[in-house]
Amino acid sequence: MKKIEVLQNIMEANESIAARNQQLLDKHKAFAINIMSSPGAGKTSLILQTIAKLKDKLNIAVIEGDVASTVDAEKVRNEAVQVVQINTRNMPESCTLIAAMIDEALKDLSLEDIDLLLIENVGNLICPSEFALGEHKRVVISSLPEGDDKATKYPLIFTDADAVIINKIDFLPYVDFDIPAFRRAVKGLNPKARLFEVSCKTGVGIDDWCSWLLSEVKARSPKA
Amino acid sequence: MKKIEVLQNIMEANESIAARNQQLLDKHKAFAINIMSSPGAGKTSLILQTIAKLKDKLNIAVIEGDVASTVDAEKVRNEAVQVVQINTRNMPESCTLIAAMIDEALKDLSLEDIDLLLIENVGNLICPSEFALGEHKRVVISSLPEGDDKATKYPLIFTDADAVIINKIDFLPYVDFDIPAFRRAVKGLNPKARLFEVSCKTGVGIDDWCSWLLSEVKARSPKA
Repeated sequence: MKKIEVLQNIMEANESIAARNQQLLDKHKAFAINIMSSPGAGKTSLILQTIAKLKDKLNIAVIEGDVASTVDAEKVRNEAVQVVQINTRNMPESCTLIAAMIDEALKDLSLEDIDLLLIENVGNLICPSEFALGEHKRVVISSLPEGDDKATKYPLIFTDADAVIINKIDFLPYVDFDIPAFRRAVKGLNPKARLFEVSCKTGVGIDDWCSWLLSEVKARSPKA
Repeated sequence: MKKIEVLQNIMEANESIAARNQQLLDKHKAFAINIMSSPGAGKTSLILQTIAKLKDKLNIAVIEGDVASTVDAEKVRNEAVQVVQINTRNMPESCTLIAAMIDEALKDLSLEDIDLLLIENVGNLICPSEFALGEHKRVVISSLPEGDDKATKYPLIFTDADAVIINKIDFLPYVDFDIPAFRRAVKGLNPKARLFEVSCKTGVGIDDWCSWLLSEVKARSPKA
């Protein structure tokens, strides 16, 4: 039972730090999204496409979460106005970002200059679902080559998502992925989730995703 | 510090249960492999291909680990001689199989009738790397659509692998994946790892993988 109690304490502490992070973001009218997916589903590519589309309208910062390496931070360095890399290796939680890591990262950002903060979580469909970071919206990416059963097999992360992005739709001719079945599985878990079909490679669907995101930023953070 | 101590205790307890699992497997001359990957990289497909190739030579059982659902167990039910499903949802560790779960599952298997036990871990490149199950060999699958940077970003799981399978090589015309660079990254972390390039869809490379696996089973478990 000892471990369960400790986990309970960690979860409660995380919730309170996440709430504090959100207050700080709200104070500066910075809107934050937590982007989660399996490894390689396209989190960094979505961030690059989103910045390309919205950088004339919003000042965008990025927090990159990875177990190890700065591969992703290097990819976005020239695109975002500010980038902070978090490496979770050797931390008690290495499989997800947690609110305390974001608390630290926010100290390295000039929040008063930021409209939109894109937080790329560690590539994992399980652990990130349990930890709030202080974000305003939660986004899950599922890509066609992973198969259409992911909502059924990893339900929690889809249940709590505000938006679900079906990425790599350019792979449709080459994979056996039933898009209507996947949509039904997500809607069954989470009727309110917004679904977007995109290809971060070809750019298809990015306009719709960015229109939604921009409207959410403007509704919540009128600085932009 | 409390959580770190608790984790330390859990890790030590896991190691001792894993050692006991391996003794039990050895007693019955059953050879076990722990198959790990991102969600959707092809663990179940590799299991199906391996059974198809080796079922005339070995009695093969499967333990399926998933957060939720019996999707994968249903896929292998008609192929393996015995199948046990573990759902990790609501367990203190939901992001990986741990040795105590395998201890329970082994009670549901007739080990005296089994030559090869294929353990499909939860889809995750982080948590499974930290928990021994009692397996004789550790296998990681990395698939082309995930990108060629996974060994750099999730090093621990590759460092401890006996074999690394590069799956979905039929996607090579459609993705930007540098196979020599990926091989170099794996070998840099783990010079002894065996690498196999396969497509579980077309069957390419399955012969090589199964030849290696069969030789490992026969060397360790002469029952087969």
